[in-house]
Amino acid sequence: MLDNGWFYERSFRNTFSMGWKVKKVLHSEKSKYQQIDVVDTDAVGRLLLLDGKTMVSNLDEFVYHEVMAHIPYMVSKNCKKVLIIGGGDGGVVREFAKHESIEQIDLVEIDERVIEVSKIYFPECTSALDDKRVNILPQDGFAFIKSKKNEYDVIVVDSTDPEDFASGLFTSEFYTDVYNALTKDGIMMNQTENPFLDEYDVKSIYSNMKKAFENVQSFTAPMSIYPGVFWTFGFSSKGARATHLIDAKRNEMEALQRDLKWYNMDWHKGAFAISNFHKRKIGLD
Amino acid sequence: MLDNGWFYERSFRNTFSMGWKVKKVLHSEKSKYQQIDVVDTDAVGRLLLLDGKTMVSNLDEFVYHEVMAHIPYMVSKNCKKVLIIGGGDGGVVREFAKHESIEQIDLVEIDERVIEVSKIYFPECTSALDDKRVNILPQDGFAFIKSKKNEYDVIVVDSTDPEDFASGLFTSEFYTDVYNALTKDGIMMNQTENPFLDEYDVKSIYSNMKKAFENVQSFTAPMSIYPGVFWTFGFSSKGARATHLIDAKRNEMEALQRDLKWYNMDWHKGAFAISNFHKRKIGLD
Repeated sequence: MLDNGWFYERSFRNTFSMGWKVKKVLHSEKSKYQQIDVVDTDAVGRLLLLDGKTMVSNLDEFVYHEVMAHIPYMVSKNCKKVLIIGGGDGGVVREFAKHESIEQIDLVEIDERVIEVSKIYFPECTSALDDKRVNILPQDGFAFIKSKKNEYDVIVVDSTDPEDFASGLFTSEFYTDVYNALTKDGIMMNQTENPFLDEYDVKSIYSNMKKAFENVQSFTAPMSIYPGVFWTFGFSSKGARATHLIDAKRNEMEALQRDLKWYNMDWHKGAFAISNFHKRKIGLD
Repeated sequence: MLDNGWFYERSFRNTFSMGWKVKKVLHSEKSKYQQIDVVDTDAVGRLLLLDGKTMVSNLDEFVYHEVMAHIPYMVSKNCKKVLIIGGGDGGVVREFAKHESIEQIDLVEIDERVIEVSKIYFPECTSALDDKRVNILPQDGFAFIKSKKNEYDVIVVDSTDPEDFASGLFTSEFYTDVYNALTKDGIMMNQTENPFLDEYDVKSIYSNMKKAFENVQSFTAPMSIYPGVFWTFGFSSKGARATHLIDAKRNEMEALQRDLKWYNMDWHKGAFAISNFHKRKIGLD
């Protein structure tokens, strides 16, 4: 896995790479589903790898986890029941759990070993997994979502790249299943790749989202450990606009955001004012 | 320079690297000041390297060049005379030259070979260098700026990282010289590095800017070819706020921004609503 003490992740088309100097390999195992490694690096601290792809690092885990939870929370009229598909590291759960009004958080992670390894090496991410509102469901996300109708207020698709089994998480069929599993004011959040490398055709991902949802918007936040770093995310709803924050939640968030590492309400509103490049790449101009 | 057909740039502390598969080395020379290379890559097209550091690529040159020019143009009350220190590729000049009301654009680039090489390999960047408002001054930026008082409406410091000779471009002494060279409504723009890797102490850079300027603000734009990609930029003024766009310029910009690749006025305003992480890293929270 290492090359002269460095770990490199090459992009899908093998034209670009990012590498980190590794101090120590902390963990390696082959689970029923994938290769799981944890390495300790100088630049980003501990780094979780699934099948040789960077997933979570100490340095920047808060970015992804905060934006995926607090953006939909602040826009959802009635955010009581939340589903996270994937996300076995627990970081998105941790952020939702900061809101006392949320009653139920379901985490559907097919590979229980990701959760167990994260508990050992990323305890700051898994800290809310024993919250009594959290249900850990070791199931296949595709089958799970098909069985649910009008049930969740927010669904976060915490997926890897659209390759192999994860490619199904980027189809209009899947987005339609998510739509149907959402309540009438429901919101879907998903990661939608890097538009500069654009190795997975970001425009087609958004086209699929638009086939299922009335309102599709996009924003960016940096993922320092993902190839290309400049990362786009989708916000899809049955009508609610991403920059329409719920007034009644502002006081709660004013207090909470002092302790958040990335999210604040001003950033939230500004993040959806996207560049021409971003609009054109996702076909939303 | 190449390793099995790849070019790698390692970060300052040698803990992180980014690499590009190279199709062909198009140019290599040692000028009086530095090593100049141009390579053709699969991922980012042509890539200009100075002393082995990525400077400009076909893929994303428009990001840096547009934000450095159009942000200060839209905020400056009287944007007639512009100075660019560095920036021999000509990209920032090209963007300023799109505004007819600008009367003079001075480009102080110490290494004339950077300009000549850019003319050959990046003609889309150098396209405005023969505009009659443009003066190319092959001089040392430090000495030049000291000789100027109350002269420029906008000064762009288009610099490399704070190492070796360029480290002087990040000192409070230099920022004070820039301040004095600016007119009373003047604006300085500069690149202020990646705050995740934070190899050059972003907080101290902003501290130095604040010693010279009444108003210092920051925004981010992605530099896909720079280490860490998530890039911060400084906007410093004698009082003008970065999100206060001049109403009289809106019609002109509405028309122009349809043809821009990155900049639009909504993005401009949103970009200054920064994350908690960004605020804390630059000491502006």
